[in-house]
Amino acid sequence: MRIYLDHNGTTPVAPEVAQAMMPYLHGEFGNPSCEYDLGRSAKSALETARAQAAALLGASPDEMLFTSGGTESNNTVLKGVYYGAGQPVHIITTRIEHPAIINPCLFLLNQGADVTFVHTDGQGLVDPDDIRRAVKPSTKLVSVMLANNETGVIQPLAEISSITRESGIWLHTDAAQALGKIPVDVNRLGVDFLSVAGHKLYAPKGVGALYIRRGMEIEPFMHGAGQESGRRAGTENVLLAVGLGRACALAGENLPSEGPRLAELRDRLYHGLKEQCPDIVLAGHPEKRLPNTLNVCFPGRLGAEILASAPEIRASTGAACHANTVKVSSVLQAMDLPPEVAKGAVRLSLGRSSTAEEIDLAVAALARAARNLADGGRRD
Amino acid sequence: MRIYLDHNGTTPVAPEVAQAMMPYLHGEFGNPSCEYDLGRSAKSALETARAQAAALLGASPDEMLFTSGGTESNNTVLKGVYYGAGQPVHIITTRIEHPAIINPCLFLLNQGADVTFVHTDGQGLVDPDDIRRAVKPSTKLVSVMLANNETGVIQPLAEISSITRESGIWLHTDAAQALGKIPVDVNRLGVDFLSVAGHKLYAPKGVGALYIRRGMEIEPFMHGAGQESGRRAGTENVLLAVGLGRACALAGENLPSEGPRLAELRDRLYHGLKEQCPDIVLAGHPEKRLPNTLNVCFPGRLGAEILASAPEIRASTGAACHANTVKVSSVLQAMDLPPEVAKGAVRLSLGRSSTAEEIDLAVAALARAARNLADGGRRD
Repeated sequence: MRIYLDHNGTTPVAPEVAQAMMPYLHGEFGNPSCEYDLGRSAKSALETARAQAAALLGASPDEMLFTSGGTESNNTVLKGVYYGAGQPVHIITTRIEHPAIINPCLFLLNQGADVTFVHTDGQGLVDPDDIRRAVKPSTKLVSVMLANNETGVIQPLAEISSITRESGIWLHTDAAQALGKIPVDVNRLGVDFLSVAGHKLYAPKGVGALYIRRGMEIEPFMHGAGQESGRRAGTENVLLAVGLGRACALAGENLPSEGPRLAELRDRLYHGLKEQCPDIVLAGHPEKRLPNTLNVCFPGRLGAEILASAPEIRASTGAACHANTVKVSSVLQAMDLPPEVAKGAVRLSLGRSSTAEEIDLAVAALARAARNLADGGRRD
Repeated sequence: MRIYLDHNGTTPVAPEVAQAMMPYLHGEFGNPSCEYDLGRSAKSALETARAQAAALLGASPDEMLFTSGGTESNNTVLKGVYYGAGQPVHIITTRIEHPAIINPCLFLLNQGADVTFVHTDGQGLVDPDDIRRAVKPSTKLVSVMLANNETGVIQPLAEISSITRESGIWLHTDAAQALGKIPVDVNRLGVDFLSVAGHKLYAPKGVGALYIRRGMEIEPFMHGAGQESGRRAGTENVLLAVGLGRACALAGENLPSEGPRLAELRDRLYHGLKEQCPDIVLAGHPEKRLPNTLNVCFPGRLGAEILASAPEIRASTGAACHANTVKVSSVLQAMDLPPEVAKGAVRLSLGRSSTAEEIDLAVAALARAARNLADGGRRD
């Protein structure tokens, strides 16, 4: 039996999503820009999908763009705000963002932007006061992820938005990991931009969305023809947009029952492991966390060794091995975890297919792997 | 009976392409960056698709990136060359490029780039000498489409490449319309970059590719994680890349028979129309043209009126109506066609499903529409 605990890496395509896409793979191939029947029905499918995506966020359909994924959504906001400003501006973000935020920021830094990367505390939480202290007269944008991909820690966006609002600064959140796992409402969060990644949400890889609050004007990232009301050029990906729309509707339907179910399974996983391996360390905040995410460190061992010794588990680690060195992820580094702890990190992320039976098997497999390695299999 | 003559707008997804995609919609959902079985099989599917795309172009797989479409491929080259240069550079392109070239160039112009837009002759052909005359010491890139989307006119890329090569200038071609319709070989053309759009090639909308000649270093367009050898961030769109790969293989198999078949049907369409409406004007070069494309102007009438009077035909026009004014496309403008001719342009683009029976019905329908309008139905 294989146990998939890497839903923060990617999710399967939900059967309902695949089914919704079928007509657009067979027969319904119109270009939404065309004025005849085939074009009009493609346009109509796209607009239904847009409304479904908007509904999950408490947004209006005209505030949603479709993109090729979370990375494009993030690039669009960061570069769009920067180039739209027409002068070098200051951007505040954090050290625990996804590379799809960090690397566009580094590119813009090279173009003349001023960028501040704020720290987190030891539990991976950003302190809104750190954001407040970083504000300058030239600050145009703050970008803080809603939930971290590695630890699942949920950031205090609503508190941050009270700071940005009073200063007239725009607020973006990368909600790739949060959406579908916790309730997300753009107005309650007080954000101006929000990034969505389809493949974290049971839609296919290669599609995403971007919420842009009505009235916000940014430079387009993808220049070309006038699709998406002139805000994102390129023939619309009708097939995957339809999939993302259905995935958003499904996430909205499942959320009330799925959140508590996953939190219970995740805690069962943690307590099961803790009982058998009392030295494990939870990475991240114990409560302010996505219900599906458990990042545990096995001190003195390597995450990759643990997973190699438990091959029935499909999961990720918090460190990458290059040649003979082990590099701890920047997220765990930002939390100042001791290296011998952080190198043992394993990220276990549950999802719609996870069951209690799987969780119990995972506990047994991981605990066995950890004990075997502790008994003498340790390598450096 | 509906007759689809808008293959330059978009193509249906080939049944073989849809079939190849199925496993990646059901079950095979791995993230190619993951090291376990599901990730490895996704990676392997991606690499097979890359080899298929490379083969159609006479390129090596390591020279191919997957993108979200032709627009992204074009943005990647233009902006990647510009930002990679580290200083304002000169770009030469033409007035008949797709908006996905023109608009990134206008953006870069605003950023400090120097851009020259060369003209075409009355048949829509770019004169290589115009390119030569536009070269400056600061010229870094020439971008000329391989075949025009509206007229199908095929540009003299090989001649242009002899100019760029001797000056150490990089050459890009947008091959969105040409690929699959005529043989395309990056070495015979002498290009350094070539853009591919999936949905013009019987793959779905939302996927494309970019050929980057080995050794060419440009700034990434999409910044983020290290996918595509660090050249295009974002979780790979495995599902659509597999579709594009299969579409490229299929195009290669079909090309030897399909090119002549379409040219014959296209000429049957033109001669049929010419016989019944002797005043029609062919827009574009009569020979140096894609085998599937016929752009004919009905002088004194509007393309949109012709198509409205022949509702069984799905095709495009060469002009757009906004409020009460009719604006001729920039491609036809660049060719200096008289406005009363250009306003009557209809683009008829054939494809894999086109049959002689359809063509004969299209001739009858269009000729009837043209005659009815000439008899008194004319509006302005």
